[in-house]
Amino acid sequence: MNLILLHSTEITPEGYVRLHGRRATHLLNVLGVQREQVVRVGVLDGPLGTAQVVDVAADAVSLQCVFEPAVAPRPRVDLLLAMPRPKVLQRLWAQVAALGVGQVMLTNAERVERNYFDTHVLTPEVYVDLLIEGLQQAKDTHLPRVSVHRQFRVLVEDDLDRLAPATRRLVADPSATQQIGDALGGCDQRVLLAIGPEGGWNAFELSLLDRQGFARVGLGARTLRSDTACVALLAVVHDAIRAPR
Amino acid sequence: MNLILLHSTEITPEGYVRLHGRRATHLLNVLGVQREQVVRVGVLDGPLGTAQVVDVAADAVSLQCVFEPAVAPRPRVDLLLAMPRPKVLQRLWAQVAALGVGQVMLTNAERVERNYFDTHVLTPEVYVDLLIEGLQQAKDTHLPRVSVHRQFRVLVEDDLDRLAPATRRLVADPSATQQIGDALGGCDQRVLLAIGPEGGWNAFELSLLDRQGFARVGLGARTLRSDTACVALLAVVHDAIRAPR
Repeated sequence: MNLILLHSTEITPEGYVRLHGRRATHLLNVLGVQREQVVRVGVLDGPLGTAQVVDVAADAVSLQCVFEPAVAPRPRVDLLLAMPRPKVLQRLWAQVAALGVGQVMLTNAERVERNYFDTHVLTPEVYVDLLIEGLQQAKDTHLPRVSVHRQFRVLVEDDLDRLAPATRRLVADPSATQQIGDALGGCDQRVLLAIGPEGGWNAFELSLLDRQGFARVGLGARTLRSDTACVALLAVVHDAIRAPR
Repeated sequence: MNLILLHSTEITPEGYVRLHGRRATHLLNVLGVQREQVVRVGVLDGPLGTAQVVDVAADAVSLQCVFEPAVAPRPRVDLLLAMPRPKVLQRLWAQVAALGVGQVMLTNAERVERNYFDTHVLTPEVYVDLLIEGLQQAKDTHLPRVSVHRQFRVLVEDDLDRLAPATRRLVADPSATQQIGDALGGCDQRVLLAIGPEGGWNAFELSLLDRQGFARVGLGARTLRSDTACVALLAVVHDAIRAPR
C-alpha cells in the first residue's frame, strides 16, 4: 500500500479523518506509524495529498490531511475485455487498476462460457476492494468504471460511441503484425484496447470490431495466457502513449 | 497447451513417441484427439514440428513426429531478478517462460528476505514443470536456464560477464525517466533486464549496476507489484526489440 485511499465523505471539512479496519491495521502493523509521522493519502476520484498522524490507538489511526489543489488526470486507456474465467478475473482486477485504466467494459463473446457471468467476482462488493488495492499500489485515485455487457454486438454497434467517445481503438490479435506503438504513433486521444477471450474473437466479432474502427495489433508470435496478455498489452499501450511526441 | 513438448530422449530415431501421464491426459481429455489427427509438438531445446496421432489408448497416446530442419533462436532477453516472495515466484515461472527469456538469474539483494531462498519453488523439480507449462503456452522449445546467486556483488562484478556476455543491460528503476525503447533503440544484441525486489534496489546495488553498464529505465510514475512489473517490463522490452529497424 503506497497510498491510503479515503472516501470524500469520511473526511471533515478541516481535513481530519479517523480510520478503523483494514487501513488502520496497515498503518499500525505494516507501516508501524507513530504520532506526527507523515503518510501519503488520496481521495477516491479526487486529489492526492499527505497526512500527519495525529492520534494512534490500538485499532484506529487519526490523520490530518492536506490535499493537492488539482486532481491528476484519469488514466488514458480504457479496456474492452471479453469476460475471462472468474479465477483469472479475480487476479486481474488489482493489476489492471495498478497499470491504469479509466474504465473496464466486460463483454460476452462466442468463446466466453456463459456461466462466467454468474461469478461473485463480478459483484462490486468484491471487485471495488480489489481495484482499490491496485490504486493504492500505484498511487492513483481514479476508481476505474466497470460495466458488464451480455451482448457483444449491442455493445460494439450501439453503446460504444457513448461509453467511449473519441478514442483511438485497438484490438489485440495474435496474428496481427502491426505493433501497438506504430498504431498509436503520436496519438493524444484516449485509447480503447479490446482483448478477446482465451480462444480469441471469432471472425464475426473481429469483423464487427474492424467496422467500428479497431486497428489490429499484436505482441508477436508467442501465445500468452489471457491474464499475462492483459498485463503485457496494457503495459505496452501505456509505454507507447507516454512517449514524448 | 498450444504445443506438446517432448524430450529428445523419448523419441525414437524414426520420430515415434508414446506418451503417458499429463501430456497424454491433455491430448485425450482436453483436445480430445483421435487417430490421424495432427498436433503441434516440439523438442525441448530443439526444433518445432507436427505429429500425427497413430494410436490412442485409455491412458496413452502414440505420435509420429516430423520436425522442422532448423531450431528457432532462443529468446533474446535475459532476466536478472531479485528473489521475489516464493508465492510471487511460483506465479511468475510460467509467465516468464511464456513471455520469453533465455535465462533467469535469481539474486539476493538487501531488501530480499533471507528465508525466500529456502522455498521449494527454487527446486528444479518444481520450476522446470512450470517453465515448460509457459513454453507450451507460447509455442517455444527453449527451456530458460536458471541460476541462483546468494551474493549480489559477486554475481554482478565477477560472474555476469561470463553468464551474460555481450548484452545490452537495463535496470528497471521507478524513478528513471528514460523509456525502454529509447534505451534500446536499434539494439540487436541480447538484452539483460535487471528487476529489483519489492522495496527496490538500495543505493549501493544501483551504483554497482551503474558501473557494470546497466542503463536505468522506467515505465512511468505508477508503482507496480513485483509480479505485474516483471510481466510489464518483459513485454515492453520484447516489443522494443522486435521493432523493425
